Amino acid sequence: MTSFKNIFLKIRENNFFEAFVISVILISAIAVGFRTYEETFSPEIYLYLSYLDYFITTVFLVEIIIRLIAEDKTLNFFKDPWNVFDFTIVFISLIPIESLDSILLARLVRVFRLLRLVSFIPQFRILIESFVTAIPRVSYILLFMFVEFYIFAAIGSILFSEISPMHWGNVGLAMLTLFQTATLEGWPDLMYQSLEVQRFSWIFFVVFIILNSLVFMNMIIGVIIDVIVKANDDDSPENIILLNEIKQRLDEIEKKLSN
Amino acid sequence: MTSFKNIFLKIRENNFFEAFVISVILISAIAVGFRTYEETFSPEIYLYLSYLDYFITTVFLVEIIIRLIAEDKTLNFFKDPWNVFDFTIVFISLIPIESLDSILLARLVRVFRLLRLVSFIPQFRILIESFVTAIPRVSYILLFMFVEFYIFAAIGSILFSEISPMHWGNVGLAMLTLFQTATLEGWPDLMYQSLEVQRFSWIFFVVFIILNSLVFMNMIIGVIIDVIVKANDDDSPENIILLNEIKQRLDEIEKKLSN
Amino acid sequence: MTSFKNIFLKIRENNFFEAFVISVILISAIAVGFRTYEETFSPEIYLYLSYLDYFITTVFLVEIIIRLIAEDKTLNFFKDPWNVFDFTIVFISLIPIESLDSILLARLVRVFRLLRLVSFIPQFRILIESFVTAIPRVSYILLFMFVEFYIFAAIGSILFSEISPMHWGNVGLAMLTLFQTATLEGWPDLMYQSLEVQRFSWIFFVVFIILNSLVFMNMIIGVIIDVIVKANDDDSPENIILLNEIKQRLDEIEKKLSN
Amino acid sequence: MTSFKNIFLKIRENNFFEAFVISVILISAIAVGFRTYEETFSPEIYLYLSYLDYFITTVFLVEIIIRLIAEDKTLNFFKDPWNVFDFTIVFISLIPIESLDSILLARLVRVFRLLRLVSFIPQFRILIESFVTAIPRVSYILLFMFVEFYIFAAIGSILFSEISPMHWGNVGLAMLTLFQTATLEGWPDLMYQSLEVQRFSWIFFVVFIILNSLVFMNMIIGVIIDVIVKANDDDSPENIILLNEIKQRLDEIEKKLSN
Repeated sequence: MTSFKNIFLKIRENNFFEAFVISVILISAIAVGFRTYEETFSPEIYLYLSYLDYFITTVFLVEIIIRLIAEDKTLNFFKDPWNVFDFTIVFISLIPIESLDSILLARLVRVFRLLRLVSFIPQFRILIESFVTAIPRVSYILLFMFVEFYIFAAIGSILFSEISPMHWGNVGLAMLTLFQTATLEGWPDLMYQSLEVQRFSWIFFVVFIILNSLVFMNMIIGVIIDVIVKANDDDSPENIILLNEIKQRLDEIEKKLSN
Repeated sequence: MTSFKNIFLKIRENNFFEAFVISVILISAIAVGFRTYEETFSPEIYLYLSYLDYFITTVFLVEIIIRLIAEDKTLNFFKDPWNVFDFTIVFISLIPIESLDSILLARLVRVFRLLRLVSFIPQFRILIESFVTAIPRVSYILLFMFVEFYIFAAIGSILFSEISPMHWGNVGLAMLTLFQTATLEGWPDLMYQSLEVQRFSWIFFVVFIILNSLVFMNMIIGVIIDVIVKANDDDSPENIILLNEIKQRLDEIEKKLSN
Repeated sequence: MTSFKNIFLKIRENNFFEAFVISVILISAIAVGFRTYEETFSPEIYLYLSYLDYFITTVFLVEIIIRLIAEDKTLNFFKDPWNVFDFTIVFISLIPIESLDSILLARLVRVFRLLRLVSFIPQFRILIESFVTAIPRVSYILLFMFVEFYIFAAIGSILFSEISPMHWGNVGLAMLTLFQTATLEGWPDLMYQSLEVQRFSWIFFVVFIILNSLVFMNMIIGVIIDVIVKANDDDSPENIILLNEIKQRLDEIEKKLSN
Repeated sequence: MTSFKNIFLKIRENNFFEAFVISVILISAIAVGFRTYEETFSPEIYLYLSYLDYFITTVFLVEIIIRLIAEDKTLNFFKDPWNVFDFTIVFISLIPIESLDSILLARLVRVFRLLRLVSFIPQFRILIESFVTAIPRVSYILLFMFVEFYIFAAIGSILFSEISPMHWGNVGLAMLTLFQTATLEGWPDLMYQSLEVQRFSWIFFVVFIILNSLVFMNMIIGVIIDVIVKANDDDSPENIILLNEIKQRLDEIEKKLSN
């Protein structure tokens, strides 16, 4: 049994196998892009593309089964969130495309498979993990931004909902409009529109933009402080260790002198 | 009397009481958002919402009274600016909504109550306090920006007021237009409009944008320097303490050698 | 003669005199802003404003004469660039406004006088000086950006001058258009306009924007490095001094031991 | 033979020669800009400009030959990538302009010659080299951004290709549209266009913009960490050297004490 597992372990660790899987992922990526030029397709190409689709699905399925069997205990496999991620992608790919109600959804599933690119390349995993670990650090600032957006959206939809229902009709639309304002895109149009009715509505926009840039600056500086403090901590031990060694030497010298 | 105060102190410190207050704040937040979808409302919902309003106002009033009584001396309560902040919010909420001339104002008062979200969550208070403490550090740069905007607004309203009275009609409108230019939004339209009349008006915009980005960069770098210097100060004492200890040892050794 | 100078020196150092001058500067600033609301003016206000103008000019003239006389040697006065700056402002203000051909120029001279706000407040001088001292540090990057803009402007005016002469008609207009593109404002319109004629013109815009952001990031990081290195230099001497002291002690101990 | 090489070496190192070459580069730059004002030209000017062109080409050719001969071994010349860069520019300039099919290409070749400005000024070379050396450091983030753009472009062209074929027609156009969205320019128009058909398409844009800003922030912070760690490394050796010297002294003292 163990020798059986060993074979799968060897396959998993095999460089050619890895290269083969990444090739299949890349081919599936190219196929997804290729399909978007469909107006120039002949019916035959559709046939070939659907064959390719079955092939990609099969390779992904086989690869995940190999990795699942190669694991010591099957449960350990699901302890790594990235394995769960891969498993979910393959599982969703297995849903027969014909059974999907909408052709749109079938296509999105194919694109969804491209997320294997992210889980396959270690540096990409590290990048994603760095985002996830950064969340608690900035969670309160994000929550604060949400509260800020919500309060301004409520004010905005009270003041401007009759001027432009598309932008300020309810608190949801207003939050989207404020997100647009936060990216500083097209906000003067919104302001001049509202200025015609409410003379002091410019205060709403100017205060929101300034408050936003303050919060954003606060977040960036917070992250930079963290980084600097960490960099200094990583750097100083060498000094501290040396200094402590020197202190010990001096202790010994003192002892010798006392004798 | 003290035991009476103790009861209120215990209520204030009680976790269930705290959870209850935050729930009421959240409910009031949801109610504010819910009201913005009013076109789909039946008259009954309005009735329920006004009952909810009385309930929220009552809870807020009771909560602030409990906190006021729980304090050793009533005056101490008003020494904390956040208490004054809360008190003001509750006090304004108490103004009977029917007595308000405008239905608009009545709605804004309800949104105003959401600011209790900010004062209730300690991390939000810290964030706001960090903004307030940062003001003196950047106050001269902000003043400089105001002077810069004012001078450019004066020049702009002299040069372009006839071209586009909406944007440059007077120094107030011109400052708003310059704020828009500072967010880099829609400034080329303003420039090409003015280029038709004043051939060299591009200098005005290019100089303003470059000067602005310089001032902004200066502000950010100033804040980062502050942060780095602070981080280094927090970090170095360990070294300095160790080095001073080593010096003292050496002094002792020298003394022993001299004997 | 020295006592005569002393009187002027005392006036210059006098707090009331300083407060009076800053008040006059502020009044002149308010007057400049006030004039931009001129459509609502009665003829009388114009008269009062012109009286105010004579008053401000006189105060500025008297103030600069006092500072000039208070100086030990008159030439020393002109060694400080800020004095030259003030002197130039006052001198230009003295040109009789009636003699100016254009009423526009007369108004601009009045705004020009507001620059005294910048030279009067020490923190503003420091800010401006920090910009001036930063120039050599970033001069090569600025020169590089100019070369980059020039080359792209030349390419742009070759490729797109027929599509949109207003934006790409010659190398000067093209540089202005590229400045607009560098602020990321309205560049998609320019691109889609050119895409209709030159299929690959998107490369021009994408490369320019990416190159620009790289150069800009390089400049910011360069400045931050400078700042960190300086902050570390300011911080480390304490360590270095202590370490050198310890070394000297050890030398002395060694000498004593050798004896 | 060596003396022959020496002459060329002396010419290459000669300040006047260097000044002459830079003057010719600058003249060629001015000529390129000047040509973009061509609608005001008389036929004579065209003649003079073509003479100037021959002159510039000749100077560049002579200069590169001198540098080539001045080298110890001709092959060494091509080991420096900047020499290859210069050689390529001069070589392409030599292609007779008349033989070029398109007048457009002939003009672009002239602009191409201006790249000699970049290779001639040492500080510009350093700047470009700093970009090239930075590539491996950020290569995975750039690759990640490409994958991110590709996946979003595939989704976008599936969801929105019928709404706006110009922007989302195929994966290539969609990537260009996403680049535009990443510069935050005109994205609300794209969103509101798509909102009419797909109610939840705002999620697509909001997620893309937030993800993008996270990746971008990650890249900037990564570069700043690198810079800080390097700055600390450059700074600490002085400390470490001193500390190690102190340790050696103590070793010697201990030895003496043991004797």
